[in-house]
Amino acid sequence: MNYQDLYNQIKKKGSFLCVGLDSDPTLFPAHLQGMEDSIFKFNRAIVDATAEYAVAYKPNLAFYEAEGSDGVRQLEMTVDYIKSRYPEIFIIADAKRGDIGNTAQRYARSLFEKMSFDAATLAPYMGRDSVDPFMKYEGKWSVVLALTSNKSAVDFETLKLEGGMPLYEKVIRETMQWGSVDNTMFVVGATRPEMLAEIRKFCPDHFFLVPGVGAQGGTVEEVAKYGLNSRCGLLVNSSRGIIFADNTERFAEVAGEKAREMAEKMKVYL
Amino acid sequence: MNYQDLYNQIKKKGSFLCVGLDSDPTLFPAHLQGMEDSIFKFNRAIVDATAEYAVAYKPNLAFYEAEGSDGVRQLEMTVDYIKSRYPEIFIIADAKRGDIGNTAQRYARSLFEKMSFDAATLAPYMGRDSVDPFMKYEGKWSVVLALTSNKSAVDFETLKLEGGMPLYEKVIRETMQWGSVDNTMFVVGATRPEMLAEIRKFCPDHFFLVPGVGAQGGTVEEVAKYGLNSRCGLLVNSSRGIIFADNTERFAEVAGEKAREMAEKMKVYL
Repeated sequence: MNYQDLYNQIKKKGSFLCVGLDSDPTLFPAHLQGMEDSIFKFNRAIVDATAEYAVAYKPNLAFYEAEGSDGVRQLEMTVDYIKSRYPEIFIIADAKRGDIGNTAQRYARSLFEKMSFDAATLAPYMGRDSVDPFMKYEGKWSVVLALTSNKSAVDFETLKLEGGMPLYEKVIRETMQWGSVDNTMFVVGATRPEMLAEIRKFCPDHFFLVPGVGAQGGTVEEVAKYGLNSRCGLLVNSSRGIIFADNTERFAEVAGEKAREMAEKMKVYL
Repeated sequence: MNYQDLYNQIKKKGSFLCVGLDSDPTLFPAHLQGMEDSIFKFNRAIVDATAEYAVAYKPNLAFYEAEGSDGVRQLEMTVDYIKSRYPEIFIIADAKRGDIGNTAQRYARSLFEKMSFDAATLAPYMGRDSVDPFMKYEGKWSVVLALTSNKSAVDFETLKLEGGMPLYEKVIRETMQWGSVDNTMFVVGATRPEMLAEIRKFCPDHFFLVPGVGAQGGTVEEVAKYGLNSRCGLLVNSSRGIIFADNTERFAEVAGEKAREMAEKMKVYL
């Protein structure tokens, strides 16, 4: 999938919503607790209820790995289900992987071959060696951490380098040289929406994956105001605000309503 | 396991060798190819042949995840085997995880509860939020990436911050404040052995995990010369140089010989 493919889907659905499948079994509705393959069943219901309004899904691998190999198996089932049922939808492995050379290549193989993810989030600390093996896959995307929405982003990400440029800006400017707008995105947190405008000055054309809307406090309006470019250029993620909006037997229905509400807010900007 | 426990094992064995279980099935001896649970069987043979000379094992999770949930299951089997048979040996999940808050907590749960790793390698980019959840586990270790042995470490790790301090030094100095010598180690690559002496000036008491010896060019002598402290303070890792030294039916025996050779070089420094 390239930039235009993703943008076409965004225009068609009138939405740039990414639903985060942070599927923590301890938060599941009671009727799913303890059921076999409960993670997959939860995800399938959420996906079926939200696919009309979402252009992307983003499972965070931590929640699956926390259940051991059985959780990983249910992640595989989830990706297979989305790809077979909704092949146009973009699936991001929120893996924040960052290793080098043949090791990075194995992570890429795990996410892009063993599973059919379209994209993976990557940590930039070790430099280009940790991103290149992912970029070698035609049609697959590297989503590189730049400025994240957590409090301790100030520990290193916003530190100024000699000359005055903050580290996250250097990360974006460097990484932009390694790939193209068709295979590279950046994670920019919504808790700092005005920073989106600053980043757009030197990175006008790339997609940004924006977490932190909803539970973490950012709004669609602010993100759109500061972050949109001429071909959208935004994927706004919401996880808990959608998938755990209700924890009764109506959880999927309510998730669908929440996703529709977000998509309606987005439509006006497209 | 705390610092002294690990140091006691080092003194007892006369070795500070960590064997990297980068168990890539495509490099296995022919008689293991295609066999059920071949990764586990390979690891078990390597561990039995090297446990006398190694104080730590370090599976890199990429090689297991590349085989999907079945690979993760064989990783679980490997960790269980080592812990049941050689409970004193330190096991490091080379995972390079780096996520935040409840997500980081899930990775910690996966590695420290679902599996019985003693330590996990962590990427520092997102700051303290990504390390704290691992540090909360009593007796478990955070092994934080500082200065790695890959070429593109110069992209970000060695960049100078305002005031002149390189980023990796800032990472070490900050992270030292979050934990103690009993739960925090740093990854410092052996391809830059003279840098070990520089880092020892401001980080004298912590363990360093040193990859890059063997296949990547560093030597035990150089690492010991620049990196040892009064209680050893080093775990030197070798992966391919040991586990893939031979690819016949004698692979485990040869791995044992290679591990013994490395341990003998180490003994003189203890």
